[in-house]
Amino acid sequence: MRLELPKYSERFGAVLLHDLQKVYEMDGGFQPDEVFSNPFHVIRHIEADKLFQIEKDLAIIIPTKNERLRLLEGVLCGLPHDCLPIVLSNSDTEAIDRFRLECQTVENYCCYAKKKYLIMHQRSKEMAALVKSGGYTQLLDERGLVRNGKAEGMIAGIMLARLMGKKYVGFVDADNYFPGSVFEYVRIFSAGLSQSTSPYAMVRIQWHSKPKIEGEGLFFAKWGRVSRISNLLLNRLISQYTAFETDVVKTGNAGEHAMSMELALQMDYSAGFSIETHHFVNLMERFGGVKVLPEDIPAMQQGVYLYQIESRNPHLHDAKEDGHVEEMIHQSLAVIFHSPLCTEVLKTEILGELRRLHIIKKHELPQIPVKYGSLQSLDFAKAAKIWDPEKHGNAKL
Amino acid sequence: MRLELPKYSERFGAVLLHDLQKVYEMDGGFQPDEVFSNPFHVIRHIEADKLFQIEKDLAIIIPTKNERLRLLEGVLCGLPHDCLPIVLSNSDTEAIDRFRLECQTVENYCCYAKKKYLIMHQRSKEMAALVKSGGYTQLLDERGLVRNGKAEGMIAGIMLARLMGKKYVGFVDADNYFPGSVFEYVRIFSAGLSQSTSPYAMVRIQWHSKPKIEGEGLFFAKWGRVSRISNLLLNRLISQYTAFETDVVKTGNAGEHAMSMELALQMDYSAGFSIETHHFVNLMERFGGVKVLPEDIPAMQQGVYLYQIESRNPHLHDAKEDGHVEEMIHQSLAVIFHSPLCTEVLKTEILGELRRLHIIKKHELPQIPVKYGSLQSLDFAKAAKIWDPEKHGNAKL
Repeated sequence: MRLELPKYSERFGAVLLHDLQKVYEMDGGFQPDEVFSNPFHVIRHIEADKLFQIEKDLAIIIPTKNERLRLLEGVLCGLPHDCLPIVLSNSDTEAIDRFRLECQTVENYCCYAKKKYLIMHQRSKEMAALVKSGGYTQLLDERGLVRNGKAEGMIAGIMLARLMGKKYVGFVDADNYFPGSVFEYVRIFSAGLSQSTSPYAMVRIQWHSKPKIEGEGLFFAKWGRVSRISNLLLNRLISQYTAFETDVVKTGNAGEHAMSMELALQMDYSAGFSIETHHFVNLMERFGGVKVLPEDIPAMQQGVYLYQIESRNPHLHDAKEDGHVEEMIHQSLAVIFHSPLCTEVLKTEILGELRRLHIIKKHELPQIPVKYGSLQSLDFAKAAKIWDPEKHGNAKL
Repeated sequence: MRLELPKYSERFGAVLLHDLQKVYEMDGGFQPDEVFSNPFHVIRHIEADKLFQIEKDLAIIIPTKNERLRLLEGVLCGLPHDCLPIVLSNSDTEAIDRFRLECQTVENYCCYAKKKYLIMHQRSKEMAALVKSGGYTQLLDERGLVRNGKAEGMIAGIMLARLMGKKYVGFVDADNYFPGSVFEYVRIFSAGLSQSTSPYAMVRIQWHSKPKIEGEGLFFAKWGRVSRISNLLLNRLISQYTAFETDVVKTGNAGEHAMSMELALQMDYSAGFSIETHHFVNLMERFGGVKVLPEDIPAMQQGVYLYQIESRNPHLHDAKEDGHVEEMIHQSLAVIFHSPLCTEVLKTEILGELRRLHIIKKHELPQIPVKYGSLQSLDFAKAAKIWDPEKHGNAKL
């Protein structure tokens, strides 16, 4: 892959937020290119060996819920071979047992492709037992099962990736129509992560565009309503501390993102639609230097690197209902509003925004986000004792 | 890339037509997979080194005409680095000089990406001089320029690829919205060509599907009206000689295809929309053993291998007008009708089909296709004397 260098970076405590980088070639060639030994070039060729070093240690978590089987298979087909797909399903098991059909589809496909995989149901007893044995009970509901929700599935996925000994974890949706886009996303993850000199790194993807049907044609929208507002307010949050206006944040709601395991285990997570926006807020809370927790000191010293990379592929997915926009704005802005970093000036601005959009009423405050503490409190050694991946796929420890 | 083996093959003289193959992984992994040393597997992993051996010798011809610049750039970005893109433009040069803008876009992009490229205008004096010096004057019009038409641009592209010393040539359209699809197409070319044990090989792509806007959603059509009919009649043509009904032909109108240079130089080409269907007809005419030309004997002895591979990516392109359907059916069927191989039974069937669709009237016959003889008659040594690629890009001989 050939990737532009970030044009500038914004520092917030130990966090280095890099400006958007463009992809120049999805495949940068099979051999090293001597031209890049000249340090004046603004493009880098991430060589195959570097990509391999990341991908063999990269788990791709695919949260899915009642998705079309052909799309799920397409996503698997687009993943670079050396990554381990971890399908975290919350599909129906009653009436039609969709989960069983998913298992069969994935097993059959992987049997042909000779691909390693893991698949688990988010609400299964086995998943609950793993979480419980690790003592991370905050993820369990009153029935003792992992809570419903995509964010909760993502957290469970990180846990499985860690149990499989993976060093990196990435997230890809199961409803993508184009395997070629999935391929690019994952290559962006590995190319992006390979840039970091710190073990604490995150890569977030900005889609090139999102095609929408308008009349009889397609319109390739660049910015969604939600990310427009959350990017703006995340940038305002940074400016409040640096006293310089900035537009560095461009991926405030990036569903497609990847992290080093060191960082993934360190972070707190919020539930619902706000999880992606909360990544930014939490990075700044924990590593911004405003309040330092003892367990964060190694990351503070080595730095936390955040890369934002623009894909070349549009994002065409199976749009079911886009009716959650208001709720997504509400939750995304709520995590900024309720952060200890949020200044009074910014709080007023957020309230104004939410009221203007009739999302909250006058005198109402944004809802308080549900949060999960970092996975450092999970006892992986204990969970590993009851962990047998071969019951949930063909991957071995 | 991981690719299914063809399930069966149909022999027609020296031509081996392989059944459709499915892609199992766009990226098959960075290392050899020992599991495939077992010959019982029905999937093959085409290793990186094999792909590289093809791609370094593969020119990708991109015929373009007044296409959006961002789509052209996206296509370049999707091409694997080691291939040489040859942009053959027939864009407007008057009023707005679109060709100049294309040159600037390609040059700028390739300067960043450090990618080799060639770009020429189909109707330029330089292109005409090359064709003329090689003595292939049938491609020139009364003004002495290369004739208008996509087929003519493709033939000029093959000539340039040969002048650049390339061993393989592939065709990709410039109006693809998804660089990830382009990437897959080209990987399919190299994976497909690598399977051949004969120097005479062709790979044709069947798109996974072609999304169309229907109402407020997308419908992923699998078979177009044109290819439905031409596949049927090409299969009927084969059956007329083998006496077994067949459905082996699935890519009768595949625009995305690639060939070894040996084969590309051997074939005759037809003009207009029929060029792709004519590939099949011409393969059967020349290498089917019905009438053998002396220059075809080496290919007859070594065999001509045709691979058909189904992409995993849908094909979403910049649909301008799809109003050519009738004309495409007419031209595609005309090359079958006017082939010396076409039996009376099949001629009657074709006439019935064209009349039923009101494409030709009663007592009318399909138009006689314009054809260009094989490029073997072109004197490449002479053309090479006036060929300077550095005037048309940054690629060197």
